[in-house]
Amino acid sequence: MTYPRNCWYVAAMSHEIARALTARTLLNEPVLLFRREDGSVAAIEDRCSHRRVSLSLGTLIGDRVQCGYHGLQFDGNGSCVRIPGQDRIPPQACIRAYPVVEQDGFVWFWPGQRELADASTVPDFSDTCSSNRFVGRRANTLPVAAPCLFNIENVLDLSHVSYAHEKTVGTREVAETRPETEITDAYVEVRRTWDRAAAPPMYQRLFDWKEVKRTQAIRFWPGGNVRLQITVEPVGNTEPNQVRHLHVVGPCTPETDTTHFKFSAMYRDFALDDGSVTDTIAEQFHKTILEDKVLMEDQQRNWNRDGEGVTMIDLAVDRAPLAARRLLLRLAQSERQ
Amino acid sequence: MTYPRNCWYVAAMSHEIARALTARTLLNEPVLLFRREDGSVAAIEDRCSHRRVSLSLGTLIGDRVQCGYHGLQFDGNGSCVRIPGQDRIPPQACIRAYPVVEQDGFVWFWPGQRELADASTVPDFSDTCSSNRFVGRRANTLPVAAPCLFNIENVLDLSHVSYAHEKTVGTREVAETRPETEITDAYVEVRRTWDRAAAPPMYQRLFDWKEVKRTQAIRFWPGGNVRLQITVEPVGNTEPNQVRHLHVVGPCTPETDTTHFKFSAMYRDFALDDGSVTDTIAEQFHKTILEDKVLMEDQQRNWNRDGEGVTMIDLAVDRAPLAARRLLLRLAQSERQ
Amino acid sequence: MTYPRNCWYVAAMSHEIARALTARTLLNEPVLLFRREDGSVAAIEDRCSHRRVSLSLGTLIGDRVQCGYHGLQFDGNGSCVRIPGQDRIPPQACIRAYPVVEQDGFVWFWPGQRELADASTVPDFSDTCSSNRFVGRRANTLPVAAPCLFNIENVLDLSHVSYAHEKTVGTREVAETRPETEITDAYVEVRRTWDRAAAPPMYQRLFDWKEVKRTQAIRFWPGGNVRLQITVEPVGNTEPNQVRHLHVVGPCTPETDTTHFKFSAMYRDFALDDGSVTDTIAEQFHKTILEDKVLMEDQQRNWNRDGEGVTMIDLAVDRAPLAARRLLLRLAQSERQ
Repeated sequence: MTYPRNCWYVAAMSHEIARALTARTLLNEPVLLFRREDGSVAAIEDRCSHRRVSLSLGTLIGDRVQCGYHGLQFDGNGSCVRIPGQDRIPPQACIRAYPVVEQDGFVWFWPGQRELADASTVPDFSDTCSSNRFVGRRANTLPVAAPCLFNIENVLDLSHVSYAHEKTVGTREVAETRPETEITDAYVEVRRTWDRAAAPPMYQRLFDWKEVKRTQAIRFWPGGNVRLQITVEPVGNTEPNQVRHLHVVGPCTPETDTTHFKFSAMYRDFALDDGSVTDTIAEQFHKTILEDKVLMEDQQRNWNRDGEGVTMIDLAVDRAPLAARRLLLRLAQSERQ
Repeated sequence: MTYPRNCWYVAAMSHEIARALTARTLLNEPVLLFRREDGSVAAIEDRCSHRRVSLSLGTLIGDRVQCGYHGLQFDGNGSCVRIPGQDRIPPQACIRAYPVVEQDGFVWFWPGQRELADASTVPDFSDTCSSNRFVGRRANTLPVAAPCLFNIENVLDLSHVSYAHEKTVGTREVAETRPETEITDAYVEVRRTWDRAAAPPMYQRLFDWKEVKRTQAIRFWPGGNVRLQITVEPVGNTEPNQVRHLHVVGPCTPETDTTHFKFSAMYRDFALDDGSVTDTIAEQFHKTILEDKVLMEDQQRNWNRDGEGVTMIDLAVDRAPLAARRLLLRLAQSERQ
Repeated sequence: MTYPRNCWYVAAMSHEIARALTARTLLNEPVLLFRREDGSVAAIEDRCSHRRVSLSLGTLIGDRVQCGYHGLQFDGNGSCVRIPGQDRIPPQACIRAYPVVEQDGFVWFWPGQRELADASTVPDFSDTCSSNRFVGRRANTLPVAAPCLFNIENVLDLSHVSYAHEKTVGTREVAETRPETEITDAYVEVRRTWDRAAAPPMYQRLFDWKEVKRTQAIRFWPGGNVRLQITVEPVGNTEPNQVRHLHVVGPCTPETDTTHFKFSAMYRDFALDDGSVTDTIAEQFHKTILEDKVLMEDQQRNWNRDGEGVTMIDLAVDRAPLAARRLLLRLAQSERQ
């Protein structure tokens, strides 16, 4: 599948980018990320215009990247600013630079047409990430050898938690409960609510509740932006301050057509000072992420084996995943025209 | 080469299949093997009809396999018997099941047209495997990164034992002796007989005879069924009870077009209670099998390098291998029509 | 790129070839090298004509190679001299043999038309390798996962030493100094001379001179013959016996279209008895060779990713590399006609 390019995609988590050269393939392109002396992040093509050596093998000197082979220098806008042994710098010596926005702990880049990049359209996770509810956060960047689309389908069909994650966050009623699905031109959201339901193993460990009143809402915006919002409270509860919130910002970005990066940052508003709660959530979520990785990579191996000709069947629960896929296809198609 | 599919092929040795999910690619298809509660073996497609995840990542519950991703359940006939969250099970949710026969320590499956599978045509090795001559048996399933055809050619041209296996079962006279070859529509057999010949190193260790009267007969039936029968006796012997028998049932099954599994089970009718004899035979045969694996995989690497255009020359000794190849091609061709 | 075949290419360094079978892919062909009983080197196809098993898995018996599978025997001229079990040896049983010359510590072979091979056209490195200036030599055969052409371009554009090798043999003035380039039908040579220049780190360690008078001359002859000649002397020196010579014979040979072998032998005419000088030169050159390997293999990965469509830009410093490439293309083209 061809992904739309005129979208903000997460290139990295903020803590990954320092005064060093970080190479990452994103949407099939070699991207070089680094932090300038003023703290801003630059994203340029990771490939010298001269002999195509990766610039990430070179050196960061001030705000310039020097190629490790013949010493050409480039700035964060992709301009070639020095060629050893000659004065003239031909315009073709310049390389590609990408618009970048850093916000809410993520670095976003725009792989499409430069003139369409509008920083105000970067998804706003500030409510989740920066409000006074911000707490014990653990972050992770996981490479997955399966198409980004598989991850989007995974998160929009949470029925899988009943089987793939039954040891951590899943219970049987998730798969048995038909979700409420909201499909718009801008996003797809899936919601489930239970007034009384078995508490998943992780909740039992965190709250000592066998049954809970709970909600889950997961939203996807193209290219690969994902947010999961969970609430848990005692059965029959009516007091707002008894409601526990657990949020995951979990964007995903294609590395190539058949591989992707899955980013995750978790937030909570309870037991803020209790490190063991942080550890439990981090460890349990990490388990689920690895379980998903195993399944998606297996799925991709089977796709590789079978080619695109083989059929799949769609179930009732696939309404939201199919809507997300159509949304991506529509955007990619309109870009080609 | 395309192998004929309307044949019984060994899918596994009996001891490999238990109350667990065993995945194996056979004739380019992902096959899932498991033993039902009544002890019978089932072979179904190792791929969920929903999102193509391997069912071998799931769970065996009674006689049903539950997909590890979204919980669909399948029985040993490939029927989808449950879809979480919906009542209707569409007919396309079913997956492929293969006819299975378990006999003589092997599990056979039929990868071709279901209605042509006739259990009575499974090769009968009961004489070798189950008679009172059955003794100290060692079994092995070896993956080989070379076409199944290379193994068939290997066993039907035993002249190679003189060079490839001179440390174990080969002597020079094998390659120098023109074999008797029997070619029929159902099988190809090669026989050699010596009234007096040097004993191969393994025989010297087993019997303390420097020279022996000996015979070897190897038969191949399509798809990949192979049996080797060896007799050894003192030079000039006329007493039947002085003849030692050594049998190998050694079927092979294509995994893909360019890889295969080589199964082997060994039987003897002498020194039945002597564990050291069992160990010697097992160890010596294992050595020869690994020597063959090295040669066949090298051969395949050279084929890969050269493509199909490059020529080979055929020798006098290739009569039986060429007959086997023609038999397989004829069967495969008649299936296509 | 297709390399010309009617050239002498280095197949191995003399010390690599003994009374044993050495396999090496050269110009996409599997070559088997061995030393005959009279000490001469033979180069034949590493593939039996019968079933295409690599002869390097077999045995050297006298001057004959015996296939490890069915025992066919070949001599160093590629003639099949024995087939077990049959008297007639068909002419197609013979395999290819290559003309070979051993000289100056290298084994050369001729992968093109046999009748055009003329031993007198093997490049003569005797002045460098065998004269009384011959000293402390260290040799190395390095496989590089990048086209041979990348290595030829690397050595003919020594501006890279300023950046890739600044810790060992490079100083900034190399890249800043426009070289003198000599382009002929037979070779391409690049020369740089400084009356006063900073001494590279390695020279500082060897001679204790901060500044030096120095020259570098590198010559390339097709297929992949390379010689580097360096002189160093005190600034203002006029006495010939004060000049230090450092020579590298560094041929390269395509293994496949996208990989090559880089051979190197180093020679000097100073501090002949000082083992620590030998160690320093060997260690410093080895570092530079590994630095080049990293850069060339990265370059090749980027080519693989981008395909041949993507552009490069050429700089002033690329005059000699481009001339070498044109020379190779011209030779390869005239062979095709």
